Amino acid sequence: MAYFDAASAAPLHPVARQALLASLDEGWADPGRLYREGRRARILVDAAREAAAEAVGCRPDELSFTSSGTRAVQAGVGGVLAGRRRIGRHLIVSSVEHSSVLHSAEALEADGGTVTRVPVARSGAVAAGAYAEALRSDTALACLQSANHEVGTEQPVAAVAEVCRAAGVPLLVDAAQSLGWGRVDGDWSALTASAHKWGGPSGVGLLVVRKGVRYAARETEEFGNLPAIVAAAASLRAVRAEAGREAVRLRELTERIRVRVPELVPDVEVVGDPRRRLPGIVTFSCLYVDGEALLHELDREGFSVSSGSSCTSDTLTPSHVLRAMGVLSEGNVRVSLPAGVAEEDVERFLAVLPGVVAGVREKLGAPAPATVVAEDVLVVDALGKRCPIPVIELAKVIGNVPVGGRVRVLSDDEAARLDIPAWCEMRGQEYLGEEPADKGTAYLVRRTS
Amino acid sequence: MAYFDAASAAPLHPVARQALLASLDEGWADPGRLYREGRRARILVDAAREAAAEAVGCRPDELSFTSSGTRAVQAGVGGVLAGRRRIGRHLIVSSVEHSSVLHSAEALEADGGTVTRVPVARSGAVAAGAYAEALRSDTALACLQSANHEVGTEQPVAAVAEVCRAAGVPLLVDAAQSLGWGRVDGDWSALTASAHKWGGPSGVGLLVVRKGVRYAARETEEFGNLPAIVAAAASLRAVRAEAGREAVRLRELTERIRVRVPELVPDVEVVGDPRRRLPGIVTFSCLYVDGEALLHELDREGFSVSSGSSCTSDTLTPSHVLRAMGVLSEGNVRVSLPAGVAEEDVERFLAVLPGVVAGVREKLGAPAPATVVAEDVLVVDALGKRCPIPVIELAKVIGNVPVGGRVRVLSDDEAARLDIPAWCEMRGQEYLGEEPADKGTAYLVRRTS
Repeated sequence: MAYFDAASAAPLHPVARQALLASLDEGWADPGRLYREGRRARILVDAAREAAAEAVGCRPDELSFTSSGTRAVQAGVGGVLAGRRRIGRHLIVSSVEHSSVLHSAEALEADGGTVTRVPVARSGAVAAGAYAEALRSDTALACLQSANHEVGTEQPVAAVAEVCRAAGVPLLVDAAQSLGWGRVDGDWSALTASAHKWGGPSGVGLLVVRKGVRYAARETEEFGNLPAIVAAAASLRAVRAEAGREAVRLRELTERIRVRVPELVPDVEVVGDPRRRLPGIVTFSCLYVDGEALLHELDREGFSVSSGSSCTSDTLTPSHVLRAMGVLSEGNVRVSLPAGVAEEDVERFLAVLPGVVAGVREKLGAPAPATVVAEDVLVVDALGKRCPIPVIELAKVIGNVPVGGRVRVLSDDEAARLDIPAWCEMRGQEYLGEEPADKGTAYLVRRTS
Repeated sequence: MAYFDAASAAPLHPVARQALLASLDEGWADPGRLYREGRRARILVDAAREAAAEAVGCRPDELSFTSSGTRAVQAGVGGVLAGRRRIGRHLIVSSVEHSSVLHSAEALEADGGTVTRVPVARSGAVAAGAYAEALRSDTALACLQSANHEVGTEQPVAAVAEVCRAAGVPLLVDAAQSLGWGRVDGDWSALTASAHKWGGPSGVGLLVVRKGVRYAARETEEFGNLPAIVAAAASLRAVRAEAGREAVRLRELTERIRVRVPELVPDVEVVGDPRRRLPGIVTFSCLYVDGEALLHELDREGFSVSSGSSCTSDTLTPSHVLRAMGVLSEGNVRVSLPAGVAEEDVERFLAVLPGVVAGVREKLGAPAPATVVAEDVLVVDALGKRCPIPVIELAKVIGNVPVGGRVRVLSDDEAARLDIPAWCEMRGQEYLGEEPADKGTAYLVRRTS
């Protein structure tokens, strides 16, 4: 039994558990009250705030606790936008932010503001220059994650902060994935995080707003689950104390997965920056594999992982992160190792994975694609078929056209828009583009080898 | 040491503590995930939702968990207003709602909507007829608490719900103070509550929206602190199991305070409805007493209570509830007994209170008021003096004018606006009204006895 989804929620750290228990009897009263129980609660929350501020590298009065990381993002983005409303209503975000940031951006657009979404390279990283270009005289705020939650790529926060600072625009950093590993470098203006990403309790977020940033708070009261706050702060300190050694260990384990998965499993793309990345996250996509089936089979083998494939989400669209990176989304697996993970579990994962992928591929197997030759184009009708079938059918027929010949894949599956170009990239075939068809979309590919 | 402020936050119930501990190891994963840990978390949250729904008397799919009672109110009021925006933007609230409801009303006004604040009787209760009169064709929502948090008065929720139902307007009930005691009667449309009012953990709220109510949810994800949710639901069941017997016991204890405080302490007004009230709350105000000094002295004697006096809050204005009721706010004390409170502690409170009040009154004592007779009016200059000094000075000089003569009190303390008329009511003197003065406000009183 191995839990490899720490980027969603890390198991409760033993120190968080201890701190929670210790503060249950002291931390239930209203810290705003003048009497004994209130004063005791106030002492607890003040100590937690100081500990968290020390870990973040800010002043205690710059830090507040919220009921989740999402709430911290909503409050932080909303508060800076409101505080700088006179300057303008333009917001800059990267295209690979967490959904909480992107939802805040959509809310601004719905309310009449404008948003620039900065693209990323195939590694998942933004360029500081792209933020510089996006800055306008009416830019109220820029947002950038410290590291990506789906592929682990670290962002150039310090460089982007410098560019923003020069333009007088505050930068809000979503540090949800990285705060357990260390402080966020650079001259940022606001920062958000979420305790259950570092092994603290769920339901506690952090919001830091540096003094001097124009900020119009919309919340009337600070979040008040004191035992959870105490546990969050205590576990952040504990996790940090172990972070140096554990980072080295997890980085070695994820490096093993990065290197060996493509050796063990054919037709795999490992995604994300190979060097500038978080210690514990590694993400790869497997051609010709249905993400949901893959997760289900891995769960049966005792591995809990997540996926950015379309087939595993409610929306039937692939992860916006993979889409923005332009990488394959089918058969996607994110392994995010929790601190303290056993090396044997990683080895067993590597031992089990090839058979699991082969099994899923075999089940999806054969249905001979209905193909019709029209002029010099081989047409593959994959209408009504879901990821990864359109790509499987393309792969089956590419050998049936001569080098220089074309294949036209008809598909109404949203994932095909991402996965057919990604397949071409992986296979060295030429992707010619898409065009609307009678039903769905036609994707054109030229055989080049 | 006696904690008498359960209406702010009840001490953690032993069942809440047990449930929290039991679910810490099972409840940290994301219940939206398909793998083992996610499924276990989902089972926990579903069971908690069913238990809470049974206690509320609603369907499980009508109930969601939030990060606080305040958040439940914000989401509930906001969601119904958004869902019924086409009908109109008029909101009805009582004038004695919790600040979370009143803040939501202010937010609507700031955003261009309109609000009717229904007045209350001196008991603190609204009349259903007043809601009927307030209803308009563009009323989107009406809100009414099940019982008042400062004075314990129960509201006629069933009658108001019937009036609203007849007009096709949903009624949202803030049941924060009463849900631990029992279900809310009547055909209400939405309901909110807060776990730490019934002995659950802080940081968990409930929001119930009946099927058929037009509701536009604004939250993108449900609150996810599973151990706290499990503890909230488990403690609600436990508290309910004890509620029948405990209500009888607490009602007898608060009745003792209601009857004996006016016998033991001169110049006291017990406020709130003597019969239609919560079992554990009793509130009284002491003439010529500074609320902050009173709380401080009671804390030294080992009693934790709260106060609606102006002197104990940051804003220097008396509680909006006492103001709406038109009762005395100076020297105000709210005793809210937690379940399981010891009878001896209540008796000790009654033994200590007379001396504490007398001591505070003695300290405030003497400064001879500067008075000037102008025409037939005795002028008391209490400018720059805070509650309860203006009333003390009025009381000192009323005997200096003949029956039929007038006293004019100059004051720039907001509490005087409430306390001078309340003093007249208690003392059988005639309050003639207020008028602007060169500095502050002049309050006119005629001696009638």
